[in-house]
Order: sequence, then structure tokens, then C-alpha cells
Amino acid sequence: MARSSSGESVLERVVRILEAFTPSDRALTVGELSRRAGLPPATGSRMVADMVTHGLLARDADRRVRVGTRLWELASRASPTLSLRELAMPVLEELHGHVGHHVQLGVLDGEQVLFVERLSADQAVINYTRIAARLPLHASSSGLVLLAHAPADLQERVLAGPLARFTPFTITDPGELRRRLADVRRDGFVVCGGFLHPEATGIAVPVRDEGRQVAAAVSVIVPNDDRARDRVAPLASAARRIEQRLLTH
Amino acid sequence: MARSSSGESVLERVVRILEAFTPSDRALTVGELSRRAGLPPATGSRMVADMVTHGLLARDADRRVRVGTRLWELASRASPTLSLRELAMPVLEELHGHVGHHVQLGVLDGEQVLFVERLSADQAVINYTRIAARLPLHASSSGLVLLAHAPADLQERVLAGPLARFTPFTITDPGELRRRLADVRRDGFVVCGGFLHPEATGIAVPVRDEGRQVAAAVSVIVPNDDRARDRVAPLASAARRIEQRLLTH
Repeated sequence: MARSSSGESVLERVVRILEAFTPSDRALTVGELSRRAGLPPATGSRMVADMVTHGLLARDADRRVRVGTRLWELASRASPTLSLRELAMPVLEELHGHVGHHVQLGVLDGEQVLFVERLSADQAVINYTRIAARLPLHASSSGLVLLAHAPADLQERVLAGPLARFTPFTITDPGELRRRLADVRRDGFVVCGGFLHPEATGIAVPVRDEGRQVAAAVSVIVPNDDRARDRVAPLASAARRIEQRLLTH
Repeated sequence: MARSSSGESVLERVVRILEAFTPSDRALTVGELSRRAGLPPATGSRMVADMVTHGLLARDADRRVRVGTRLWELASRASPTLSLRELAMPVLEELHGHVGHHVQLGVLDGEQVLFVERLSADQAVINYTRIAARLPLHASSSGLVLLAHAPADLQERVLAGPLARFTPFTITDPGELRRRLADVRRDGFVVCGGFLHPEATGIAVPVRDEGRQVAAAVSVIVPNDDRARDRVAPLASAARRIEQRLLTH
């Protein structure tokens, strides 16, 4: 790999530039982008020009820079997560028509849940996730399902903390978290009332792949009321149907 | 930009490697990948190793290589197409619940339609598109809508041909195509019976952004029967609601 005089590879810079964009900052000036990526202005400007030439970035009419449609296309059309998402989509749509609010599909990536799909109703209860957003494993229903079935070394790293508190209901005690993970494995679902937001309850179930390994979690986010548990049955049924589609595709 | 001894930039190689993956070839050996990308094996192997390190590619258990989840995340979370897609999604879901079959959201990219969303029913009529797939402008309903409102120079380039034939119903005559584009601008919708597949009809309407420019096309793919035109009204209504969401978000 070609390296600059600072010993940094071109790929490192590409990734740092892409990491500078966020859902709330989808367009940046070259100056802002260089600062966020920690690059000298001349280097940032040259990198941006090259990335625009190759369609990885695009310039707005006002010369601000965005992630390129071509990059999205290249990343999406062969993405394993998109394949899972496409198989699951008809089931997620039907579940969303039934439960309303938010329906999500999440996968384990590193030490977090990465959400590969989210369907939201206009009047849905608040929550924090969106497509391609991440949440910590200990504080979300999808995260608890994925962590309960994760390799032991990952579980121990997460249990070793720190376990960030979001509300008074977030589990921050390692012993309690360990017991909840055992419950998830026994019950096959988890209900998390107010872990991330006091008014929202997350409910999640595992989705197993052809080899019976847990590949994803399907979850719904609903208001924090007595009816939350009524959603476990339709959610479990949706997970079984996604598994069936994984087996037969 | 750092260049190899062949004068090719690292970014060019990155793009060629990503282009080697397709929806039907989501996983490739390093050898296959190098051949498809036109790279010497040693160069391909080194590039793949660096791209895996940075999360742009990932290795399977069987050592085959895939597009990395991290790349999908970086490309998606700040993508302008994803922003449009997220705003449109509740409307697309409702339209899909009503019409069934396939509902799609496409944008103009280069001289093709790029589909940023597709909702499909299990028993839907056949069609060719999928998420992040492309179709030629002259042969799809979304393409005709986007082409009808595209800059004049793009229209002239497409009209100058070649206009590929997919079925006996595909428009391949430049004069006829020019007349159809005028019809689309006058009518505000287009119905394409059998352009891509003899059994499927595409119907598309434009979606305008805050500045009243056509930003996307919403389309449905339904069976090639008498009832196809009944879908124009719900489609037009969906487009108006997406425009309202673009205005108020």
C-alpha cells in the first residue's frame, strides 16, 4: 500500500474522510472535512478531489461535499447485510403493519448492534436508532439478544464494562446483566422497558441462520405500557418466517 | 494521490475491487477478485489485506472475501439517497400494502435509473430490479419519468442511442421516444406495458424536491392486465405525500 510521508496509507485517509460524515452532517465543506479527518488542508483537498473523481464523494451545487451515490451503490449491491435485509423485508413490513411504531433488524458488529433496517410509523414512540446506526449491546433489546448468543470472549469483554447508564432502568451491574443473558437464552426473547428512553420499551427475538447460529435480532420499539408483552408472539412468529426464508432462498 | 509504478492510483484499484462484486457474486476468492479487477495476484492480495484491515472488505470463514459491513455503514449513514429513502419509506410501505407486487424508488444517476428502494411481495409479478440495481432510462417507467425531466444534453445523448431492445414493446425509435417524453411531461405519469418483460407493466410518477425539480421517480410493477391504469391514482397520491414530507422535514 502506498504511504504518504507521514507513513499513513491512502486507505486510512479514505476511511477517516468517510467517518467525518454523520446522519446530521451529510454535507461538509472541504475545510470542515479536512479538520474532522485530521488532514492538512492541501492533503484533504487533494484527497477529496480524487474521491469525487471516483464517485466515492460528490460535490453539491454549493461546493459542499457528500458521500457519493456510487459508493452507496458499490457498498450495497453486494453487501451480506443487504441480502439478509432483502430476505427479511416482506416479513418486517407485515410485522410493521401489525405492530406499528418501529420495527428493526439488527446484526452484531464489533461490540455493538448495527441496524440494517428500520421501519417507522409517523406517530411512533421515540427511539434512538436509524438505518446504519449503532447501539451498545447491554442497553438495547436487540443488543441483549445478540450478546446472549455471542462468543464467550465477547460476552466477558462487555461484562467487564464500562456499562453506560442511559436511564435509571439501564442494566449497569455485571451480575444482573449475566442473569439477563441467561434469561434471554432460556426464554428466546427479551423485553427491555425504558433502558434507553423512559417512555419506550424494546422487545427483541433472535433470528437463526441455516446453521442455527443467531445471525440477527428482530425488534420492535413500542410505548412503555402494559401491552408491550402482547408483541412477543407476533415478533417470534416473524423471526420464524425470516428463518424459513433464509433456509429456502 | 499516491500512485503505483503502473501510474494507477490506490483509489482506482479500490473502486475496481469493489466493482468486482455483484448481487450474484457476493463472495469471491482473492484470486477471482484480482482477475476481475485486472490486478496482478500479489497486488490484489496486498490490496485485499489492507481493505480488510480497514473494514472495507471482510473475510469469510472459508477465506473468501466480501464487501465489509463497515463500508456499507459508512456509505449508508450519510448518504443523500438514504435520506430521501427514509423520508419516503412510510409512504412506500402504505402504497405497497395497497398495490402489492413491487414498489420502487429510483433516482437518476449517470444515464441510468438507480433504485434506492424496492418493496416486493412474495407472489409479485416478475421484474428485473433490486435495491442498488440500475436500469436503462428508455426501457423502464422510472427511467422515462426521470429522462423526461432531465437536462436537454442528457436527453439528446440517450436519444442518439443505441436504444437496446428487451421485448417487442421496448421503445427503440428515437422519434417515438421523444414523443413519449413529451407525453410524460404533459400527463405527469407513464404506463410502460411489457417494455422489459412481456408480462409486467411499469407505472411511474415524478417526485419533486423543495425547489420543484424532479428528484426521483416512484413506480409500481404490476401484471400486464387491464387494471394497470387503476394504479396511477394511488401512485400520484403517494408522490404528493413524499413531496410534502420533503418540504416539512
